[in-house]
Amino acid sequence: MDAVNHQFRLASRPEGMVGREHFDYVEEAVPELQDGQVLVKIDYISLDPAMRGWMAEGRSYVPPVEIGEVMRAGTVGTIVESKGERLTAGEHVSGWLGVQEYAVCDENAVFGVDTSQIPLTKYLGALGMPGVTAYFGLLDVGAPKEGETVVVSGAAGAVGSIVGQIAKIKGCRVVGIAGGPEKCGWIVDELGFDAAIDYKGEDVADALRKHCPEGIDVYFDNVGGEILDAALARLARGARVVICGAISQYNNLDSMRGPSNYMSLLVNRARMEGFVVIDYMGRAPEAVGEMAGWIAEGKLIAREDVVEGFESFPDALKKLFAGENVGKLVLKVAQD
Amino acid sequence: MDAVNHQFRLASRPEGMVGREHFDYVEEAVPELQDGQVLVKIDYISLDPAMRGWMAEGRSYVPPVEIGEVMRAGTVGTIVESKGERLTAGEHVSGWLGVQEYAVCDENAVFGVDTSQIPLTKYLGALGMPGVTAYFGLLDVGAPKEGETVVVSGAAGAVGSIVGQIAKIKGCRVVGIAGGPEKCGWIVDELGFDAAIDYKGEDVADALRKHCPEGIDVYFDNVGGEILDAALARLARGARVVICGAISQYNNLDSMRGPSNYMSLLVNRARMEGFVVIDYMGRAPEAVGEMAGWIAEGKLIAREDVVEGFESFPDALKKLFAGENVGKLVLKVAQD
Repeated sequence: MDAVNHQFRLASRPEGMVGREHFDYVEEAVPELQDGQVLVKIDYISLDPAMRGWMAEGRSYVPPVEIGEVMRAGTVGTIVESKGERLTAGEHVSGWLGVQEYAVCDENAVFGVDTSQIPLTKYLGALGMPGVTAYFGLLDVGAPKEGETVVVSGAAGAVGSIVGQIAKIKGCRVVGIAGGPEKCGWIVDELGFDAAIDYKGEDVADALRKHCPEGIDVYFDNVGGEILDAALARLARGARVVICGAISQYNNLDSMRGPSNYMSLLVNRARMEGFVVIDYMGRAPEAVGEMAGWIAEGKLIAREDVVEGFESFPDALKKLFAGENVGKLVLKVAQD
Repeated sequence: MDAVNHQFRLASRPEGMVGREHFDYVEEAVPELQDGQVLVKIDYISLDPAMRGWMAEGRSYVPPVEIGEVMRAGTVGTIVESKGERLTAGEHVSGWLGVQEYAVCDENAVFGVDTSQIPLTKYLGALGMPGVTAYFGLLDVGAPKEGETVVVSGAAGAVGSIVGQIAKIKGCRVVGIAGGPEKCGWIVDELGFDAAIDYKGEDVADALRKHCPEGIDVYFDNVGGEILDAALARLARGARVVICGAISQYNNLDSMRGPSNYMSLLVNRARMEGFVVIDYMGRAPEAVGEMAGWIAEGKLIAREDVVEGFESFPDALKKLFAGENVGKLVLKVAQD
């Protein structure tokens, strides 16, 4: 195959907001396949808040992307050619293939996904990393009980929208915090949240007082900053705060803002706990299986927000950090 | 009885550092006893960081002290007169009798303490609220395992000094953070901590790196602020952060400083949990019994720092918040 591959490689580490200038757009020939390898044409690239962390230097739960390396990303695609023993041309696969149009990799670096019932993009969203994150973060770390009040921030995002729906399935009262009337309308009208708080249009602390008269039992945090503080101030006795992300802080030029209301953990005998989805990868089939069932039954709505065209990658990333996506943000490599 | 009683009553709510001006010094006659009541001559008054919180307005785990009310305090004393059915004159008791020389109260508001083997002051320290706080905060919330590394701040204080010693008894490596060479020497040489970090004389983050090469498994926090942040940056995988207090922040004029390194909870799959000792009052005998045994065996050293003279109360409180006490700070009502 003589195809040309395009890639975004990390050019420099951002301080403050990430942008086009932090990547090199590179063109190179698709390499020859070795035995055991497959060539994957990447159809969709996942855009995730965690990307900002991977671009930074220093210790985290995974090593940083090195300067000059293809930017790390979850992807779904189609096998074009196979010198493997298991996967054959035409099959759909998912894997960490990075921000590029084609990838050559060991057959075992990807896994096949069934697209007979479920569209390919869902494997980057509800049935991918965000869905598994939502499932175990809420159920294992947050451990909500029926009748409890669950609040989730980033509620119209890839993880938050699933968290809220799972909490509803488990019999909780669910309040979502999102930015703007479109997102707030969507999570209440389409996803069935009990209430939405528009952090761009109302005072979050006041709204939490109104919508959580008995306090918050589980707070699932994707955003950090002021919203985390407002939620901490409203905890119920024995509350669990799940730290999943802090998207409001990732592009800060100043140092990270800590939650100044953390002593509410003491007053309310509450705990704040972090987790990393990688730890749950062994149990992912359990989550994916149950969520696929909910999707089939119409109980779980998974929506993708699709940006088209490989070159749009840096803009799509900015859209993510500007909080403009509704549902799971993905990049469609080919333009329609 | 015609005794005169002196009291410190809350005069105003402090902003910033607490001082003499926030109290009224009041003289009044000791009231007549009613049936079922006892008159207690207060011998020692406990000085606790929590007092600062009780002086502030607003929701917490106990109601604030009202303006004009006798300042809340734990006390130990001697029954002078009894119209109760259980306690008789001459017995020693412990109870929440406030910052005053005498108290008339229901017999059931105090409980008798055995001073045949154990000095009265210990019931305000290792065998009182601070000891019970240390015991359950460490063992129940922190849940250290043998061989783990436990770090405690305020390590020469009433709670911290007990926390570190219990952790040693349980087979942990223990590092204490305290201010100044005297305290640091005491916790290592007398109490048997493995290492001490003098936050006034060295960089806490550097010292934690040196003394906790494998990271911190349990961090017991009494101080908040920069030290909490330094500890968060050094957590081991699966660490437990116990939030017991934040004495560095209580007298701040600015808003509370939140721990900006809280995302370390995510990276390290760690949890931060608050607790209130009141919840463990039903189980206090368990803690007091075991610790009395350790004291008798010489495994647990409990030291009190005694300030003399009832009128010294406001100064003693300042000494507490200046971190000048070594061991449990108590006020001896009578001067020698």
